[in-house]
Amino acid sequence: MTSWEEKAAAKRAALAAAIPAELQFSAEQLPGPDRLDVSKVPAELLPAEVVAITELTASELVAAIAARKYTSVEVTTAFIKRAVLAHQLLNVFTEFFPAMALKRAAELDAILAETGKPVGPLHGLPMTLKDQFRVKGVETSMGYVAWIGTPEAENSTMVDLLLEAGAVFFVKTNIPTSLMCPETDNVIYGKTFNAYNRTLSPGGSSGGEGALVSMKGAPLGIGTDIGGSIRIPSSASGVYGLRPSHGRFPYLKVANSLPYNEVVPSVAGPLANSVADLTLFTQAVLAGKPWTYDPRVVPLPFAPYELPARPLVFAVEFSDGLVTPHPPVLRGLRLAADALRAAGHEVFEIKPFDPATGNDVLLRSWTLDGGEEINSVLDASGEPGIPEIKPFINGYKALNMMELFEFNKDKLEYKTAFLEYMRDLRSPSGKPIDAWLRPVMPSACVPAGKFKYRYLGYTGLLNVLDYPCVVVPTIKCDPAVDVPAPAPADDADELEKLTHADYDPEVYKNGPVGMQVIGGRLEEERTLAVAAVVDAAIKAALA
Amino acid sequence: MTSWEEKAAAKRAALAAAIPAELQFSAEQLPGPDRLDVSKVPAELLPAEVVAITELTASELVAAIAARKYTSVEVTTAFIKRAVLAHQLLNVFTEFFPAMALKRAAELDAILAETGKPVGPLHGLPMTLKDQFRVKGVETSMGYVAWIGTPEAENSTMVDLLLEAGAVFFVKTNIPTSLMCPETDNVIYGKTFNAYNRTLSPGGSSGGEGALVSMKGAPLGIGTDIGGSIRIPSSASGVYGLRPSHGRFPYLKVANSLPYNEVVPSVAGPLANSVADLTLFTQAVLAGKPWTYDPRVVPLPFAPYELPARPLVFAVEFSDGLVTPHPPVLRGLRLAADALRAAGHEVFEIKPFDPATGNDVLLRSWTLDGGEEINSVLDASGEPGIPEIKPFINGYKALNMMELFEFNKDKLEYKTAFLEYMRDLRSPSGKPIDAWLRPVMPSACVPAGKFKYRYLGYTGLLNVLDYPCVVVPTIKCDPAVDVPAPAPADDADELEKLTHADYDPEVYKNGPVGMQVIGGRLEEERTLAVAAVVDAAIKAALA
Repeated sequence: MTSWEEKAAAKRAALAAAIPAELQFSAEQLPGPDRLDVSKVPAELLPAEVVAITELTASELVAAIAARKYTSVEVTTAFIKRAVLAHQLLNVFTEFFPAMALKRAAELDAILAETGKPVGPLHGLPMTLKDQFRVKGVETSMGYVAWIGTPEAENSTMVDLLLEAGAVFFVKTNIPTSLMCPETDNVIYGKTFNAYNRTLSPGGSSGGEGALVSMKGAPLGIGTDIGGSIRIPSSASGVYGLRPSHGRFPYLKVANSLPYNEVVPSVAGPLANSVADLTLFTQAVLAGKPWTYDPRVVPLPFAPYELPARPLVFAVEFSDGLVTPHPPVLRGLRLAADALRAAGHEVFEIKPFDPATGNDVLLRSWTLDGGEEINSVLDASGEPGIPEIKPFINGYKALNMMELFEFNKDKLEYKTAFLEYMRDLRSPSGKPIDAWLRPVMPSACVPAGKFKYRYLGYTGLLNVLDYPCVVVPTIKCDPAVDVPAPAPADDADELEKLTHADYDPEVYKNGPVGMQVIGGRLEEERTLAVAAVVDAAIKAALA
Repeated sequence: MTSWEEKAAAKRAALAAAIPAELQFSAEQLPGPDRLDVSKVPAELLPAEVVAITELTASELVAAIAARKYTSVEVTTAFIKRAVLAHQLLNVFTEFFPAMALKRAAELDAILAETGKPVGPLHGLPMTLKDQFRVKGVETSMGYVAWIGTPEAENSTMVDLLLEAGAVFFVKTNIPTSLMCPETDNVIYGKTFNAYNRTLSPGGSSGGEGALVSMKGAPLGIGTDIGGSIRIPSSASGVYGLRPSHGRFPYLKVANSLPYNEVVPSVAGPLANSVADLTLFTQAVLAGKPWTYDPRVVPLPFAPYELPARPLVFAVEFSDGLVTPHPPVLRGLRLAADALRAAGHEVFEIKPFDPATGNDVLLRSWTLDGGEEINSVLDASGEPGIPEIKPFINGYKALNMMELFEFNKDKLEYKTAFLEYMRDLRSPSGKPIDAWLRPVMPSACVPAGKFKYRYLGYTGLLNVLDYPCVVVPTIKCDPAVDVPAPAPADDADELEKLTHADYDPEVYKNGPVGMQVIGGRLEEERTLAVAAVVDAAIKAALA
């Protein structure tokens, strides 16, 4: 019998063999490990034409392809090259299938040449997928040794709809074992790293997507989020991400941990290099009427949101009162708040309603089965998984049915109280809010393999509440500016002390910081429109 | 310690005492028990003015009150009188609070007199509530002895929104113990009967509502439905009912069995005497923005559906292939299909996708906890409940968490396959359907206390699928026409044989028969608009 180590090694070797030598740079060409910020390496090493194409956003690319400035083959070839370089620098890929992509790109080019019409809003656009998404003929190991070896018989519904819209998929990307971790590491592929500081993780669980989009190895990628897994990598890699409400996008035929745990469901959403690209994705997926495929999707077509002519109203939360964010996180959020005020909007500070109860509901939702499902997949191959998930999957007892009802009761009561709080919230000038601004994590980024605390309350609370969140990048950590705050009092909470102790300005150096722009449930269009205003204000302030 | 029998008797006595003697008819005035059809009794016994008011529909009444033809006090007084007579004939009430209602009606009259404007779309309209709905100061025993004795501190959200819209509540109505039964009976209040044949039940669980609305003791009532509990009483009492999609109307602060069982949730909806009144209710509730109170409600304002100019396309299902409906049920549905064809619409016959699997999912969803929750409420007082629920609550084992995940998987796969089936369904002329027509039950009505089989597949499947259903009345059972069908073959399914054996034309005599008009998830407006077309065709055929 083959050991799990041998199976993992064979899978790694198969991935390496799938990357043609002519696409790879030699060790001499690549920067050494002492170069931490590799974000500019593609522009230095790749041909100018490849750089010119890959620096465009998804929205710019689909316009250029539709206008026949570039063919899909040209664009796809350019992103394949840049993605391979990103992989060599950061270890991003799980499955690589460029031949399939180029064949499809050529078909799309032929259709456009013949009909003069794009097949859909994403005609010819190369895209990437978190490893959970199924592609016919490609494997979905999700970092589990036990799942190696079965090519998929069909696509995830999301993949089908995006193909219908004209997307071209060429690679799937790395995740943490079980997905239940804000880093990216597993026994098959190992760790993925951060483009801006290679001692940092790109976050997780959609860490491969975040890293690849930040390197512009992909103009648009898809992740999933059950506690922050789109938002943490978006923030850590300095890109944009949308965690939609449950029921807005399809999740059918997507591999997952606890896939049939419905109490706080995972959702799928995009990572990209602009708010406009997140909106393009939203429009493209909804044009495919996902509610006619996935019974969980609400029949809500894309409805463009027109911003009101009046100043917008923002509630900003610097700390949830449980865990104080690190100095760069606070600086980024303050910059955004000040920039919005400077642009004429109303911004006022809030503390959210009882985040401790929300955190408790979140944790109980993740550990409903006492780790049985994840452990059974680990046991099937004998692999140990990664150490980060151990306390999480082995520290809880499965609920019985009456305990589940009790959990559902607590969840509903919390969501109801929070909804009431948000409904009645008024600014100092007496206005209801357009959006709620909030940190993504207490820290900027996650030191790779060294994450000392697992406070996911800033993102996870929104999974409990199921409000749409757009991550917008703010600043990068700067040791010269982001000096440590005074230590918390001796009687402070242990997590608060641990978080404070973890902040070393040099460790986080150059790490990107994002923030969340949060709207009302199923109001993706409005949240995206308001996030674009926040983004423009931040860019103006940084310019 | 007081026995459960004494507590139940005291509660019955309290209800009797709450009905002023001057509102009651004497035993001599009332028809004897040999008069089975009492539907015309109110018109015979009540003053002409009371009859004139109470024969109006809800839509007509709110227009008349807004136009100051009647005051709310006049209308409420009239319905109180008619409701008391209905209660004397059919045993409908659980809680009766006319003084509270008349005080509110007077307040609404004063507001209208002063401002000239109705407070909302239901200004001054008397309404009734299934006992589950909470009203401040009124008890919610739900037929359970253990729950007697605690006046509510606050209203259900639905009650609050309807009050905001101008409704006047004056009575709550009877249900079966635990609600999980298509009849209406419990140890406190006993059986409720059918207006058209007092040996029949009005169905259940919203049986009190069905009976009262059919007697025009209320122009508009509210029930709930987790397997047919709005639709079965609507059909059995010859009235109209809407089972909305989950997430369209609020269910917050409503008493229930297994209230935190989320796998196939109960929904709240109206019973009334016209499709227009169901639409009025829908509009009134959605105008109150229920999604700002109940986090489960989807933010979908009422969107009037305009019927297309083309002929509509209907798929009609006479039998699900598992249990053949009784002759009157088939006759009613055939009449509707023929009437629609005569009106120029396209009607074609279908068999639905794998109803056996749908039934299995439904049954598992009801018995998730192995009866623990319901048994614990029965045990709290020592009451036995009603015999009909025993096999149901004691015949199953509680699921563990992995079994729940397995259940969720089966449910999702079934719903997905069904959605695909409905999406791709085409009429003989190649068109997608506007609605699916289906029986409500295999039988017309339910002989009181004698329901021999519990086949709820015709309604329950739609709870699994979560599609909106409107019940429209068709015919009444006629022994001269509805002769028994030939017996099923010896090797037929036991349930099929039992159902056939149960059909005795004399037993069901004069019992109303309804049918379901079924639309797509969350398409309440469209389903109501199409149901109005079906209703008009049936009325034309019967005229």
